[in-house]
Amino acid sequence: MLSKAKIKFVKSLQIKKYRKQEQCFVVEGAKSVLELLNSDFEVVMVAATAEFLAKASLQGVADVIESTPAELAGIGGFQTNETALAVGKMKPNSSFAVAEDEFALVLDDIRDPGNLGTIIRTADWYGIQKIIASEETADFYNSKVITSTMGSFARVHLFYTPLSEYFQDSSHRVFGAYLKGQDVHTIDFGKGGLILIGNESRGISAGLEKFVTDKITIPRYGEAESLNAAIATAVICDNLKRGW
Amino acid sequence: MLSKAKIKFVKSLQIKKYRKQEQCFVVEGAKSVLELLNSDFEVVMVAATAEFLAKASLQGVADVIESTPAELAGIGGFQTNETALAVGKMKPNSSFAVAEDEFALVLDDIRDPGNLGTIIRTADWYGIQKIIASEETADFYNSKVITSTMGSFARVHLFYTPLSEYFQDSSHRVFGAYLKGQDVHTIDFGKGGLILIGNESRGISAGLEKFVTDKITIPRYGEAESLNAAIATAVICDNLKRGW
Repeated sequence: MLSKAKIKFVKSLQIKKYRKQEQCFVVEGAKSVLELLNSDFEVVMVAATAEFLAKASLQGVADVIESTPAELAGIGGFQTNETALAVGKMKPNSSFAVAEDEFALVLDDIRDPGNLGTIIRTADWYGIQKIIASEETADFYNSKVITSTMGSFARVHLFYTPLSEYFQDSSHRVFGAYLKGQDVHTIDFGKGGLILIGNESRGISAGLEKFVTDKITIPRYGEAESLNAAIATAVICDNLKRGW
Repeated sequence: MLSKAKIKFVKSLQIKKYRKQEQCFVVEGAKSVLELLNSDFEVVMVAATAEFLAKASLQGVADVIESTPAELAGIGGFQTNETALAVGKMKPNSSFAVAEDEFALVLDDIRDPGNLGTIIRTADWYGIQKIIASEETADFYNSKVITSTMGSFARVHLFYTPLSEYFQDSSHRVFGAYLKGQDVHTIDFGKGGLILIGNESRGISAGLEKFVTDKITIPRYGEAESLNAAIATAVICDNLKRGW
């Protein structure tokens, strides 16, 4: 059974300040908890039904709590979860190298957690495991982000950093979506580079335009003024991968 | 100024039952309200700042109310709207013909309003103006759907109907995404047909599989198990349009 203190602890992690303080985050739902258990994240706690616990690999988990569906439904941020919930240890915000023959995403203030989660899931589908994000981008460890990734949070690495400085130190091609650029259906993306995705409302920051080496455009056949940021990411990824 | 009765009326339209009763729906935000005013929807009410009203074309609007940003922020479902809000008249749920050389989407229980709105916006970008939806699909007139379409609600027609019956009466090719199907990068989509998009959790209903004439697959280059429904729609649309 979940104690009052643990329920309070899990609920506190819905708030970024407490996640930062505790260096912990919540994972909800059977599929996402299984992905967490199979990942290299340290797992602090698993609360789940007896049925789930019987099948899960719980080695190294400090605190395993058998819980009823009703208890689980009440504790998380999502009402539909009645099977499993876990608390993982956050990883440090550490940089990584992007190889010359590798693609990575760069997110310029993607503020909507659902969009960020969907972008992470899409990147994972297309074999892109590295994402560089501005500090104004939604928090990777937000419950809605984690849930929207559908488990891909365990495979995709995200590094928060000021983007101007990042681009200054980079020698990669930078692809950025603009209204007038090269058609993504015909451009040669080459073997690697950075795909810069602009903010949901204002697109790519004016201050970052000078770092874009290749302006690209997703052809429009109808009337909508723009595409959702996660949708644009997917269409670009599909086009750059098909060329391989 | 917005009267208490009008605030109550607008707020009631957040609930489907009252939308149905009043045959009215809410549109929030400057861009979406402008799209509504430029559409063939009947506009019952516009509440907006003096600045917005001075620029908008309000011919035929029964009720125009000058409002302060604070009033507008308090009334809608989205806190960021401080400029304009409108009430439109719902259109009847009427069917339409899909031509032989036209593509339309068919939605099999897309339950998430954000996904439905994003699908409508994406369809509009790709020049697809007709969507057939199962009756379990989210309500087109839900505020979150309308907002997520970013104005495309005014151009894309959605018809709710039981899908089995619809397919029985149709002679179109039906493309459906499965794990093992023809690669969307190489399949010939031809000149027209129906693109069937499955539910977020369970994909395409088992009962509809017999109507699918062409099983298709979005190639995967990484590890994610699936793509978000709106993302899959976009990738399919991008591939079928590039062939034209």
